[in-house]
Amino acid sequence: MASKRTADGGRAQIIEAARCLFAGNGFHQTNMAELAARASVSVGQIYRLYAHKTDIIAAIIQIDADQRLAELQVISDAALSKAMPIRDAFEELARTVLNQGGEALTFQILAEGHRDANVAAVIARLCERYRELLRGMALLANDSLEGDRLACAGEILLSCLFGLGNRELSRPDLSVDDTARLAADFFLAALR
Amino acid sequence: MASKRTADGGRAQIIEAARCLFAGNGFHQTNMAELAARASVSVGQIYRLYAHKTDIIAAIIQIDADQRLAELQVISDAALSKAMPIRDAFEELARTVLNQGGEALTFQILAEGHRDANVAAVIARLCERYRELLRGMALLANDSLEGDRLACAGEILLSCLFGLGNRELSRPDLSVDDTARLAADFFLAALR
Repeated sequence: MASKRTADGGRAQIIEAARCLFAGNGFHQTNMAELAARASVSVGQIYRLYAHKTDIIAAIIQIDADQRLAELQVISDAALSKAMPIRDAFEELARTVLNQGGEALTFQILAEGHRDANVAAVIARLCERYRELLRGMALLANDSLEGDRLACAGEILLSCLFGLGNRELSRPDLSVDDTARLAADFFLAALR
Repeated sequence: MASKRTADGGRAQIIEAARCLFAGNGFHQTNMAELAARASVSVGQIYRLYAHKTDIIAAIIQIDADQRLAELQVISDAALSKAMPIRDAFEELARTVLNQGGEALTFQILAEGHRDANVAAVIARLCERYRELLRGMALLANDSLEGDRLACAGEILLSCLFGLGNRELSRPDLSVDDTARLAADFFLAALR
């Protein structure tokens, strides 16, 4: 396939193609030639941008997390500025992760995190940013939280949101809206 | 390698070998010849027991979940019979999942669940058993829960425990004991 050059050197096309192929066929079953064909760039160009296939995984994690964290930051800022009650902010937070999709790719990425130290480090750094944001929201719900109790609130909120965001395979009966609404009540009761 | 026959036709050896190879190298990168060598059985014997490689994944999920559910059932029974206070039961529940290990294999399995309908169906059935057990424990904490609120309590407990059981890559600062203790407080406060 003829290669197309764009301002970003084909980065966006490569990432988009990698998302589809990794999610559908798996990370290890996808080779650079397939990826190049799907992205309409040359194999050489992929290697110039991403020395290893795991660098593409790391880039996908970073892009998705930056976008997700930006969405959650908007909700958190609205709560911090009192523009949104903290209960509604938790509901919105839960709804955002429940609607996120992309579970198939997430599990591919997490499986790879266990094999590649760089991918694991990217995941660990991002989790720390999530925890910080969630600790801030926990403090809005209860400003007397501190020390281990505050750390644990962040930890449990992170675990719960991770679980809620990856429940496609568990075939839940409850709708996204019901779950988000009741999750917010649950979080608030737990934190106060 | 010479094949060894055991009373179960080599099932236990095959499952044990598959766990190591799937977790370390990935499901798709493991072929039947490698698996046979590692398990000290013939390739033909593997196919007689498991027609498809995904049947081995399904068997691993079933074995692990039956064992995990049996452990959780002991905790739940102790709480139901009032031999253990519900708060302690939640702490024990959290400690059990926090200590479970095997995250690398879990993500391999979940990634495969998105490609194989039989694996997905096994996961969905097991999640329903987990939900039922967790709804029972939620009722012990608060017997006025019913309908959507009860369903959601089970859903959120399941999400949270799934997240807590798979947080190795997130590099948490808190110890297992602190997290289990504080998670129990968190669950109880949320449910009451």
